[in-house]
Amino acid sequence: MLDIKNLKYNNDGLIPAIIQDYQSKEVLMLAYMNQESLEKTLESKTTWFWSRSRGGLWNKGKTSGSYQTVQDLSYDCDGDALLIQVYQEGNACHTGEYSCFFNKLIKGEIPQGYKILDRLYEIITKRKE
Amino acid sequence: MLDIKNLKYNNDGLIPAIIQDYQSKEVLMLAYMNQESLEKTLESKTTWFWSRSRGGLWNKGKTSGSYQTVQDLSYDCDGDALLIQVYQEGNACHTGEYSCFFNKLIKGEIPQGYKILDRLYEIITKRKE
Repeated sequence: MLDIKNLKYNNDGLIPAIIQDYQSKEVLMLAYMNQESLEKTLESKTTWFWSRSRGGLWNKGKTSGSYQTVQDLSYDCDGDALLIQVYQEGNACHTGEYSCFFNKLIKGEIPQGYKILDRLYEIITKRKE
Repeated sequence: MLDIKNLKYNNDGLIPAIIQDYQSKEVLMLAYMNQESLEKTLESKTTWFWSRSRGGLWNKGKTSGSYQTVQDLSYDCDGDALLIQVYQEGNACHTGEYSCFFNKLIKGEIPQGYKILDRLYEIITKRKE
């Protein structure tokens, strides 16, 4: 397994971390980690970030209760981004929305993935009759 | 709708863009856009990024054929990150993997989301008998 020292941190010593819901696969937020916060995340299995505005480490959920329990953690092909799948307690966004990405510039239709469930529901209902 | 000038670009004029498969919700890559590449993305409905290594704009798929067609585009609560859901032609990663996030530090079990489909399959099979 990779030594996390060998990940590529930017000039501020930070690496972006994409946080994704482990079950629904919804993307919840993007935040930044330094090496220390990544170590704490791996140890505690809850997410620790570097707050660029407050200039300090924070354990998400410590004050709000909205903890993120880490289920799966990947890094990308060039080692300069993280993808962390979590169980999210409460909401990820400080606005009270579940995901921080609730503002749309382009809005998609219902994805095919969900349409498959509708089709399965139809089949089950029909067979039950 | 927000004027994209009002998004928060970093000191290099860049904003991170998370690219996600619109159907499976798998996260494919993290790349960076400047205002011009975001404008071109919105106009062409294919992804344009700023290459930090090559120092220029690139239209993903132009040389590889692995175009990403934009289905849904969001920005986050503080306007400093983008989430773009796409139909991916071929593979997102230059290594030949579908997603760039194929290296694991923590590996999760099969998520509940897929187990539901197994359960539905069982129900359908049973009712068919």
